[in-house]
Amino acid sequence: MLRLIKKLSRKKGLPPGTLVHVGEPKEQTVKIDLIEFDGETYKTSTITDSESLPVKSKSNKVRWLNIDGVHQTDIIKKIGKHYNIHSLVLEDIVNTGQRPKVDDYGDYLYIVMKMLYPDVQNNSIQSEQVSLIITDNTVISFQEQEGDVFDAIRTRLQEGLGKIRNRKADYLAYALMDAVVDNYFAILEAIGEDLESLEDEVLDDPVPQTLQKIHTLKTDLIYLRKSVWPLREVVSSLERRESPIITEPTQLYFRDVYDHTIQVMDALESSRDILSGMLDIYLSSTSNRMNEVMKVLTIIATIFIPLTFIAGIYGMNFQYMPELGWKWGYFGVLSIMVIVGILMLIFFRKKKWL
Amino acid sequence: MLRLIKKLSRKKGLPPGTLVHVGEPKEQTVKIDLIEFDGETYKTSTITDSESLPVKSKSNKVRWLNIDGVHQTDIIKKIGKHYNIHSLVLEDIVNTGQRPKVDDYGDYLYIVMKMLYPDVQNNSIQSEQVSLIITDNTVISFQEQEGDVFDAIRTRLQEGLGKIRNRKADYLAYALMDAVVDNYFAILEAIGEDLESLEDEVLDDPVPQTLQKIHTLKTDLIYLRKSVWPLREVVSSLERRESPIITEPTQLYFRDVYDHTIQVMDALESSRDILSGMLDIYLSSTSNRMNEVMKVLTIIATIFIPLTFIAGIYGMNFQYMPELGWKWGYFGVLSIMVIVGILMLIFFRKKKWL
Amino acid sequence: MLRLIKKLSRKKGLPPGTLVHVGEPKEQTVKIDLIEFDGETYKTSTITDSESLPVKSKSNKVRWLNIDGVHQTDIIKKIGKHYNIHSLVLEDIVNTGQRPKVDDYGDYLYIVMKMLYPDVQNNSIQSEQVSLIITDNTVISFQEQEGDVFDAIRTRLQEGLGKIRNRKADYLAYALMDAVVDNYFAILEAIGEDLESLEDEVLDDPVPQTLQKIHTLKTDLIYLRKSVWPLREVVSSLERRESPIITEPTQLYFRDVYDHTIQVMDALESSRDILSGMLDIYLSSTSNRMNEVMKVLTIIATIFIPLTFIAGIYGMNFQYMPELGWKWGYFGVLSIMVIVGILMLIFFRKKKWL
Amino acid sequence: MLRLIKKLSRKKGLPPGTLVHVGEPKEQTVKIDLIEFDGETYKTSTITDSESLPVKSKSNKVRWLNIDGVHQTDIIKKIGKHYNIHSLVLEDIVNTGQRPKVDDYGDYLYIVMKMLYPDVQNNSIQSEQVSLIITDNTVISFQEQEGDVFDAIRTRLQEGLGKIRNRKADYLAYALMDAVVDNYFAILEAIGEDLESLEDEVLDDPVPQTLQKIHTLKTDLIYLRKSVWPLREVVSSLERRESPIITEPTQLYFRDVYDHTIQVMDALESSRDILSGMLDIYLSSTSNRMNEVMKVLTIIATIFIPLTFIAGIYGMNFQYMPELGWKWGYFGVLSIMVIVGILMLIFFRKKKWL
Amino acid sequence: MLRLIKKLSRKKGLPPGTLVHVGEPKEQTVKIDLIEFDGETYKTSTITDSESLPVKSKSNKVRWLNIDGVHQTDIIKKIGKHYNIHSLVLEDIVNTGQRPKVDDYGDYLYIVMKMLYPDVQNNSIQSEQVSLIITDNTVISFQEQEGDVFDAIRTRLQEGLGKIRNRKADYLAYALMDAVVDNYFAILEAIGEDLESLEDEVLDDPVPQTLQKIHTLKTDLIYLRKSVWPLREVVSSLERRESPIITEPTQLYFRDVYDHTIQVMDALESSRDILSGMLDIYLSSTSNRMNEVMKVLTIIATIFIPLTFIAGIYGMNFQYMPELGWKWGYFGVLSIMVIVGILMLIFFRKKKWL
Repeated sequence: MLRLIKKLSRKKGLPPGTLVHVGEPKEQTVKIDLIEFDGETYKTSTITDSESLPVKSKSNKVRWLNIDGVHQTDIIKKIGKHYNIHSLVLEDIVNTGQRPKVDDYGDYLYIVMKMLYPDVQNNSIQSEQVSLIITDNTVISFQEQEGDVFDAIRTRLQEGLGKIRNRKADYLAYALMDAVVDNYFAILEAIGEDLESLEDEVLDDPVPQTLQKIHTLKTDLIYLRKSVWPLREVVSSLERRESPIITEPTQLYFRDVYDHTIQVMDALESSRDILSGMLDIYLSSTSNRMNEVMKVLTIIATIFIPLTFIAGIYGMNFQYMPELGWKWGYFGVLSIMVIVGILMLIFFRKKKWL
Repeated sequence: MLRLIKKLSRKKGLPPGTLVHVGEPKEQTVKIDLIEFDGETYKTSTITDSESLPVKSKSNKVRWLNIDGVHQTDIIKKIGKHYNIHSLVLEDIVNTGQRPKVDDYGDYLYIVMKMLYPDVQNNSIQSEQVSLIITDNTVISFQEQEGDVFDAIRTRLQEGLGKIRNRKADYLAYALMDAVVDNYFAILEAIGEDLESLEDEVLDDPVPQTLQKIHTLKTDLIYLRKSVWPLREVVSSLERRESPIITEPTQLYFRDVYDHTIQVMDALESSRDILSGMLDIYLSSTSNRMNEVMKVLTIIATIFIPLTFIAGIYGMNFQYMPELGWKWGYFGVLSIMVIVGILMLIFFRKKKWL
Repeated sequence: MLRLIKKLSRKKGLPPGTLVHVGEPKEQTVKIDLIEFDGETYKTSTITDSESLPVKSKSNKVRWLNIDGVHQTDIIKKIGKHYNIHSLVLEDIVNTGQRPKVDDYGDYLYIVMKMLYPDVQNNSIQSEQVSLIITDNTVISFQEQEGDVFDAIRTRLQEGLGKIRNRKADYLAYALMDAVVDNYFAILEAIGEDLESLEDEVLDDPVPQTLQKIHTLKTDLIYLRKSVWPLREVVSSLERRESPIITEPTQLYFRDVYDHTIQVMDALESSRDILSGMLDIYLSSTSNRMNEVMKVLTIIATIFIPLTFIAGIYGMNFQYMPELGWKWGYFGVLSIMVIVGILMLIFFRKKKWL
Repeated sequence: MLRLIKKLSRKKGLPPGTLVHVGEPKEQTVKIDLIEFDGETYKTSTITDSESLPVKSKSNKVRWLNIDGVHQTDIIKKIGKHYNIHSLVLEDIVNTGQRPKVDDYGDYLYIVMKMLYPDVQNNSIQSEQVSLIITDNTVISFQEQEGDVFDAIRTRLQEGLGKIRNRKADYLAYALMDAVVDNYFAILEAIGEDLESLEDEVLDDPVPQTLQKIHTLKTDLIYLRKSVWPLREVVSSLERRESPIITEPTQLYFRDVYDHTIQVMDALESSRDILSGMLDIYLSSTSNRMNEVMKVLTIIATIFIPLTFIAGIYGMNFQYMPELGWKWGYFGVLSIMVIVGILMLIFFRKKKWL
Repeated sequence: MLRLIKKLSRKKGLPPGTLVHVGEPKEQTVKIDLIEFDGETYKTSTITDSESLPVKSKSNKVRWLNIDGVHQTDIIKKIGKHYNIHSLVLEDIVNTGQRPKVDDYGDYLYIVMKMLYPDVQNNSIQSEQVSLIITDNTVISFQEQEGDVFDAIRTRLQEGLGKIRNRKADYLAYALMDAVVDNYFAILEAIGEDLESLEDEVLDDPVPQTLQKIHTLKTDLIYLRKSVWPLREVVSSLERRESPIITEPTQLYFRDVYDHTIQVMDALESSRDILSGMLDIYLSSTSNRMNEVMKVLTIIATIFIPLTFIAGIYGMNFQYMPELGWKWGYFGVLSIMVIVGILMLIFFRKKKWL
């Protein structure tokens, strides 16, 4: 649960634009990859020295600069200086508690997204902040750590699959965003499976742990919603082409991403409704179980308490108790007890408790 | 429940526009029917070879191309190429997890709807994705499998009933959408009947299974809502004639479809409210039942425990217990027991437990 | 409950504009009344032959054609033809499952409303569809059966009360709508009384039937809301004078109707909130009752079980039990029992169970 | 509760503009006060004869006509005629079931508000309808009965405190509305105190009556909300100066009233949230109490039932029961009983029931 | 809880613009600090005599006048007169029950915010009203008492850190607002920790006090929401630069503050959802505990009541009871009792109660 609020701690009292990394502390070195391509050519290189960042050029080649790791703020600062990026943007890149958003800085767009992946060990969902800087011929992407969601795009670029090599930076940005959103569907599938096994559990054999599972899943859904809901607005504003950096042919593709985002939201809402239905069933099943326990107690007690009373009567030591001397007294009393017992059973049967 | 989220799995890492069928795997061959008509003529033909698709013509005849089956992506691709349809549209046609929507591609409109039909075997609701491509004189409809909702329209076309033969493609598209929406009313009627029998059950004889039925019906309603709610927006945008493909005389008819969609939504909302009321009654009846069980236990125990105690006293073996020697001791004690019992019954009567 | 969804069944597969009566089957003949009036004159007549419908005229007289009964579709068709009414409108007139709405057909407005009246026999609310066709000098009203809500207007017309005789058709339409909305207040009053008696019941003596009454009233409120909520939009659009048929002086009157509609909605919302509060009280009172039952059981059992145990001890048949031989053993044990019982009572008093 | 819906009953079948007083029947005579003032002069007079109403003048003096009592419809009618007020306005003035609203009639504004005051006797909130007619140099206020909320304004006028004497009628109207809204804060304070004492009760010693108090307070909040919520819109439209009667310098003051209205709404929302939280606590405490009752029963029964059983065994009358003859049999059994009892207590201690 | 509504009490009947301090009564003297700076110079001074307030000048230096304490209304009045501030603004400054808002008075902006800080003693949240008056070269800030949230800004000004010395008054205002909003994150962190420890408590060992803690935290969240939600609108309107006082370069910074406000709101919403989930778990755990109690009672009672009955039978004193004379009668009965007990245990094991 901490997850939902922990990343909020911020540097207090520092001037805006001060770069302070907020997030999981990391140790690996920041990795910078550069891919340059156009319809014909494709070149990939790793930049080890932040001095050797490519100069801005007016060439038609599209450049994709991918940075894995935002914890070394000096590197981020150098990149920011090199590309003339506003200090508030740099601050948001290294502070990984951002909400998905798009900021239009005129000659570049700044986009924040959340990449989600299941954390199998803790049976929860982890998130990583992905920042994109989009100019007309360059895309700079910042990830918190080396990931593989973008590998398929690298392959498509290298092998020239689809139209990606013939398009501009905005299409590349679309492809990256699409990859992130596509990944949400995998998360949803995992949640769907959890929901289904939980539904079986709740209907067949609810135990107190079931409630905790419902609670965990509910928290996961809240977390997912927080990541996806604002993204909807982001993609919608890109789709409406409020910035000249997004060209008209790419607009259609952003509409496609928008549709996917809506589908994710729809599935989240449905999951939430179903989950709240499960809670009702769980709570009701607790009552039903109690009912059953009470019925057993009531049946046993109601049958035997009167019988014990009868036995108690003839256990009294009065000197003058005529029945005690009767020959068939004992068997008569036994018969009466059997009859009382049977009458009780009939009564319970009529009440449908048996 | 899977139903609500299962169709989401998507091809990951493939370039956009790659056709991958997502949905129930099917085996039957795709069936392509062509109907050409105007006020005077009506011609129907089955296209077996996707090469023989009719060429685009400027004639006044309206063409309706109906494709049953979207699982053979190569056929869909050929049709797409033949009619110059955007690859994103083709991708959506074969991926049957779309949300109802309308996309305006300038010279054609792309509409996605969900056709619903009751699945009697599993006592649930199945859905099929229906895609429409509307140009000024051609309607192409894609269904997942051969259906019969459109048969009535075929008859009206063949026999020239109503105005359908004298109108353009937009009117034909209206007729197809109207048929899909009309079908929702049948689903609603089935749900209405379920609701009513459930209401009787919940009021007269609620059992734990009742809760499961409520849960199933609730999930059905969520599913229905997911199909109908976005359609409302689709029809509304058609009714506002945002595209020139929809002509003014047809606008009124789309307003009619819009009214029907609203009626369906209204009925869904009402059903949901009623269902949540039933849940309250069910939960309350569980408590009432427990109350009744507890009362029986309490009455029996409260009457006989004191009596047993009295019997227990005179079952003690003290040597000096004067009452034991009294002649009327036994009958006196019995009388006291009867009086105590009667007092208890009066007490319960006063408490309205009897 | 059926009521909420039953009227939805529609003719499937028929071309739009086909008149099929949907609603309660009726047997009485359709009754057509014509009232013609202006400031000076007032003429009323009954039209038996649908051929003798008045021809459209440019005279300044206002005509009110009232049709009681929409089940004879041929008559409706003739009227429609005579007044040149769109077939979709006629379809909606005879299909009594419409949602309140206003459709602007240029030279006439089509308005659908729901007239509500209490069904004393079934203790529920019945509704009747009222359709109005408004042109600049004619109002045609369609009712499902002969009613009396409009009688007061007939009297005002005949006796020239108020301004109604000096105004145009739009004012007459206003008067008719006002009569329908005024009638809602009567329904609300009935509901208010039900609510009040229900509140007394729920606070003083809740029984399981109380819950059913709450449920019934809740369903009634849902039903009412369905009739009134869309009417709000209808009146609002008339008040904004989006059609030239509504003249400026009448606008103020529609604003008045609008205010009344809002008042009805307000009262409905309040009633719903109160009803949901009653449900809480009802459910809580069930728990309280169970608490009381449990307390009685616990008090009796907790007092007598230990006492019975003591009696049981001295009922044992051991040969060497010194107390049995004591002279004051019996009375000593009795005293101990009394003391234990009193201690228990003090304990319960302290717990505030007594 | 009646309060929430009772004032709705309206005259049915009467033409619009018919004045029918709806509200508490009253007996005192209507009182009409006139205050005339400008920066220098201040004159107050009581009008006994409705013929002597001041004639409309173009003077710069501001006139405030205050009418206490709206039950004598003939007087209201005369005033309406004198000032040329629309009959629908007069109808609303005497029908005290209006919703707060502002109607713009061009040369005057009609404003309805609800003045609230605590009804100490019935421990509830009473409301009175206040109507204002505002022209450029006259304010006419209608109250249901003589009140004192406006007394402070009279004093300010008389003694020339603040700017009120140097401003126009719109400022006077602002002052009156501000007085009404300020009064809501007093109501809120009373509710806040109720809430607090209720919170203590619910946490410390919840009884069934607590629930009724929660219910009453909830109904009060619904009632308050009904009065305040629509007022928000009224003040907002005045603040936006949609009518020329409201001058620019006064606009700022209406913004101030608007802020106060929002503050009242905020406090109402908070109160509602807190109240619903109290309901949860109350319901939970009922369960906790039941838990406690059950625990006492279970502890007593679980300890003594087995012991009684042991005693029962040695109370059997078999001829051959070796233990009965043992010398230490009795004390052995007693020891076993003590040990069993102690084990039970340890078990309960472990379960944290003790 | 009082906190949520107590500050509402207002002066009734006083003319608007009358300064009445509403809030905690305070005794310390009001402290007025003046800081003057531009890129090169920095001067700080304490103003003891309200006569010596700096005259308005057209210099490029930015002035920040900070007033700690608003309870001495005469000082506030003098400042207001000196700077020509509207009396309604002054009234709002000293009435500390304002809702966050921004009012545009043309040549200055008036902003109200709530500064929150944890009240460790009462384990709750305290708030202080911060008012800002922003002109083009002066910022006047009013706090209820001496605080330290603005200290970091003083340091930045003094040491010339960041850009704050080179910017105008709007940037200083931004810095002050940013400091207030940043402080919310600290509050959120504290709440997050409370939530987490509460979650552990609710899952592991819920006691009745847990519910009170949930209730307190819920009230805290409502209180926080009241402070933050309206601030969102305030910052949004500043960011949209509706006033010329906010210059374009600063606009970006206000967008940053806006993002932070949204993040706070998001975290609040999540916390509320989680809290409501905890309530469900708590309530359910109460039921589970009752279930457990009932099971223990039922198992013990169901096993021993029948056994006690058997013992009771052979405790009867009938003269003719053949079993009593049997040699193995006693041991036979004991064996039967053991068998019955074991059968019961098997039954409970099958029911999964053991």
